[in-house]
Amino acid sequence: MIASYTDFGTTGPYLGQMHAVIATQAPRVPRITLMADAPMFDPVSAGILLSYLCDNLPDQTLILAVVDPGVGGERRPLMIRGAKLQFVGPDNGLFVPVVRRYEDCLIEAIDWRPSRLSDSFHGRDLFAPVAAALATGKAVAGIPVEPRELAGYDSNHDSNRVIYIDAYGNAMTGIEADGLSDERTISVNGKALRYARTFSEVPAGQPFWYRNSNGLVEFAVNRGSVSRLLNLRPGMPVQF
Amino acid sequence: MIASYTDFGTTGPYLGQMHAVIATQAPRVPRITLMADAPMFDPVSAGILLSYLCDNLPDQTLILAVVDPGVGGERRPLMIRGAKLQFVGPDNGLFVPVVRRYEDCLIEAIDWRPSRLSDSFHGRDLFAPVAAALATGKAVAGIPVEPRELAGYDSNHDSNRVIYIDAYGNAMTGIEADGLSDERTISVNGKALRYARTFSEVPAGQPFWYRNSNGLVEFAVNRGSVSRLLNLRPGMPVQF
Amino acid sequence: MIASYTDFGTTGPYLGQMHAVIATQAPRVPRITLMADAPMFDPVSAGILLSYLCDNLPDQTLILAVVDPGVGGERRPLMIRGAKLQFVGPDNGLFVPVVRRYEDCLIEAIDWRPSRLSDSFHGRDLFAPVAAALATGKAVAGIPVEPRELAGYDSNHDSNRVIYIDAYGNAMTGIEADGLSDERTISVNGKALRYARTFSEVPAGQPFWYRNSNGLVEFAVNRGSVSRLLNLRPGMPVQF
Repeated sequence: MIASYTDFGTTGPYLGQMHAVIATQAPRVPRITLMADAPMFDPVSAGILLSYLCDNLPDQTLILAVVDPGVGGERRPLMIRGAKLQFVGPDNGLFVPVVRRYEDCLIEAIDWRPSRLSDSFHGRDLFAPVAAALATGKAVAGIPVEPRELAGYDSNHDSNRVIYIDAYGNAMTGIEADGLSDERTISVNGKALRYARTFSEVPAGQPFWYRNSNGLVEFAVNRGSVSRLLNLRPGMPVQF
Repeated sequence: MIASYTDFGTTGPYLGQMHAVIATQAPRVPRITLMADAPMFDPVSAGILLSYLCDNLPDQTLILAVVDPGVGGERRPLMIRGAKLQFVGPDNGLFVPVVRRYEDCLIEAIDWRPSRLSDSFHGRDLFAPVAAALATGKAVAGIPVEPRELAGYDSNHDSNRVIYIDAYGNAMTGIEADGLSDERTISVNGKALRYARTFSEVPAGQPFWYRNSNGLVEFAVNRGSVSRLLNLRPGMPVQF
Repeated sequence: MIASYTDFGTTGPYLGQMHAVIATQAPRVPRITLMADAPMFDPVSAGILLSYLCDNLPDQTLILAVVDPGVGGERRPLMIRGAKLQFVGPDNGLFVPVVRRYEDCLIEAIDWRPSRLSDSFHGRDLFAPVAAALATGKAVAGIPVEPRELAGYDSNHDSNRVIYIDAYGNAMTGIEADGLSDERTISVNGKALRYARTFSEVPAGQPFWYRNSNGLVEFAVNRGSVSRLLNLRPGMPVQF
């Protein structure tokens, strides 16, 4: 399966044009849109979120990940083979959380270019054909890259922050939820929130934190928008 | 074919994660998103709309329907086999209009649980694997349920109301259009509207009611938004 | 491959119902949504954009194009076979830019009607079954149409205008970019903009024009919305 993970949005022709390439070059490979509104222009937040989504993706999924604010500038195209999953996308920090979280990734810079490469749409022209080739078992020429050579590998990725706000207004953080005690309060924008297991345990209108279905701490309000209630924005720091 | 019908919205990872499961477990079954913005948190309106959409779905479609505000609380997971269609989803009133509208449904509570079931995402963890199994001809253990045992079966589902407002601003009601005379005026929010067969029969800017392509009474304005013009909201009562 | 190109939006049941038909009637043909927010109610702008998107669609794609404000009125349904691509949709000007841009198109009025044809949803009831038939190699009865007989063929399609504003706020024009000198300034809403090759060549916040990935002049701001900055709307004239 090929799963696209982009910040293209659900409108416009971009997602469709990229999928047109993979649907044609890998017609028998199932194809889904994992997410089209990955944190926009923010490869670090997008990478943290992706690294947790990976836990719930079926084995053998190839993720075509394009969050690429610097397209047209200098950055390498990458292909990454992990134990369960593969990845294709730009070397701009997006894959650092994945590579840190999953060991034994084989990273390569893509050493192939299409006959026509636009300046602004590498998703369609370069990454999609490579993804289709890998998903159908074809080899793509690559140059080995060490994890520490990835762009932004050594920067301090502070994941104690809001990384995504969904359509319900729930606010995901980059904080792993598994090790946290239920007694812990977690603070955001000056407000300390208590834990609840599920939405239905909390009265309507009251904010809480819970362990979301991807293993992350998430802020929510039963039948309401925590982001509106507490005025939350992506990137906001979280204390706990 | 598996058709998803959810209130997840088109953004975020939820729809993609659910489709990833069915694309992997039923890779050769065609898969569509019937609707991702079913009336949110409102299983009754969502169920009324679904029951009419069913008339225009191809035979043998399996509908994976997840409008589930009470996830994490107590409610049974259901699988329903009708003469033409199958359904998988929660027992919270969502399927009552379908079961009332279509006779001879075989209803079962799903007697299977995945090895890992998150508290908040049964669409991905429970309903999607069951849908993929049924669509590929596998048996899933179930416990027979009588229609009258469905949650909310006996409640008064008043369908004389606005159930959905689409992106054009058109307002669907839950009122069956087939038996209505063209002479009938229908009132909403204090305004009585006349019938027109099509948009192009009405001057731009004038509101009217018509029989929509799913057999329901719908309010519209030619090249405009009736919801904005008449200040309509989902749930508003309709008199006729 | 069947690619849908509509102004239905990504919400509501319309896109899903249309895809349900093609997924069922052509289950083995890959299927993508090329674009669901084609310029709304504006077949001319939608047609200009489509004619340029065609350059980047794989050979043998069938485009199911429905931008159809006059549905219910009198207009012919069309099927068009070009050297590389096929098209199905309404005769309302939508295909004029395609037919002008690509020579040797064989145009036919569709001489088939379904047993049940709703007044307002020809995309689902008429165009989708025809698209599925053509994509699976079945014949559909048609009546030859000369290009000059197409609705709006002789009208003056001024493409020197903004035709689409995407989710980033970038504004596409209908102006072909290939022949233009990099020295050219292009004016919109009273502001003259200079050329830049890519976003990363321009300081954040400064508007510019560039050749977009579909060969059109596009206005943009590095990490910002040019439409908000310059107050641009679809249809606005462009001078150069």
